[in-house]
Amino acid sequence: MKKTPATDAKQSAAAQDPVLATRERIVRAASRLMQRQGYAGTGIKQISLEAQATLGSVYHFFPGGKQELAVAAIRHGDLEFAEELRTALGSETDPADAVLAFTRHLATGLRTSDWIDGCPITTTALGTAGSSPDIQSAAAEAFARWREIVFDKLRETGIAETDAHDLAHTVISTLEGAELAAQVSRSSEPLDIAGKHLARLITAYL
Amino acid sequence: MKKTPATDAKQSAAAQDPVLATRERIVRAASRLMQRQGYAGTGIKQISLEAQATLGSVYHFFPGGKQELAVAAIRHGDLEFAEELRTALGSETDPADAVLAFTRHLATGLRTSDWIDGCPITTTALGTAGSSPDIQSAAAEAFARWREIVFDKLRETGIAETDAHDLAHTVISTLEGAELAAQVSRSSEPLDIAGKHLARLITAYL
Repeated sequence: MKKTPATDAKQSAAAQDPVLATRERIVRAASRLMQRQGYAGTGIKQISLEAQATLGSVYHFFPGGKQELAVAAIRHGDLEFAEELRTALGSETDPADAVLAFTRHLATGLRTSDWIDGCPITTTALGTAGSSPDIQSAAAEAFARWREIVFDKLRETGIAETDAHDLAHTVISTLEGAELAAQVSRSSEPLDIAGKHLARLITAYL
Repeated sequence: MKKTPATDAKQSAAAQDPVLATRERIVRAASRLMQRQGYAGTGIKQISLEAQATLGSVYHFFPGGKQELAVAAIRHGDLEFAEELRTALGSETDPADAVLAFTRHLATGLRTSDWIDGCPITTTALGTAGSSPDIQSAAAEAFARWREIVFDKLRETGIAETDAHDLAHTVISTLEGAELAAQVSRSSEPLDIAGKHLARLITAYL
């Protein structure tokens, strides 16, 4: 992920603040582990080991335990993905080219992780559907934020508000599904094809 | 799910064969539980309780334990979803209308389960990405089968082979992603919009 100056500033502040740094390490570890193993497959002890933090400090920052950690992990994945999406969409003027560029970015990320690290929130959200309203809300917020970023890009180019709203839904849904299909089949083909079709669909509304 | 005569015949044969019936009950229980809780969140004991089968009979049918059960569960979900897809696509002559009908079917299913029962294989497949090649292969096979059903429908209406191949990819990816988005946001809107856009995309190739 390309870092923006804002992120660099945030990270350097985090490095100077040991309390914030510990919390941040815990959230990142939880996010990465739950992305790969799901909510039930990830224990607090494993998170504390991965974060090089004591169990005591994990419970200090997250007295609500694993549920609270999962919400923070989803929120972290939400913002990380939002930043990648914003950067990719900003790299091209034409929204069709911009979405195509983002599918390539996702395919590269998946291949680099040997098809393991897909969407940062889906695994956690799906394994807790119906059992944790807080996790479900955090995931719903993430999807809404990502749609908003696509919506803004489409509106900039003069696409009508209702069309932009609907297209933003389909862009995010299709990216999610194509990333999942690519991950499962260990091939970028679903993302390559999704990029082509989304570009065609967007162009039809320009 | 609407039952076809073939399913009825299969179920009645299963009811008459107590050995098959036990195995079938175990697979269905594993499939339903893993769909909701993921692989790590589902224990063999819970499956045996849900299936009203002894732990001994679970290990008798599945000596490979939970991994083997997960592969059978994914295969079960794969075939169940394939039948629903085939039925919905067969209900309309026009492939665009047919895909739209299927998005409505998915939305009804999700709403009926209070937004809990989404794709029957995604939760299991995602939580084991990178750790179980057998589960990953079973999920890849499922996606390929579903694409094949869409491909056949599109080819029937004269869409060129390459276009039908690509469209089948995007139809399945978008349905997957929209189902996930609908589940997370507890709203049929992502599926309704996906149906409209997929119909538009397919019509552009007719």
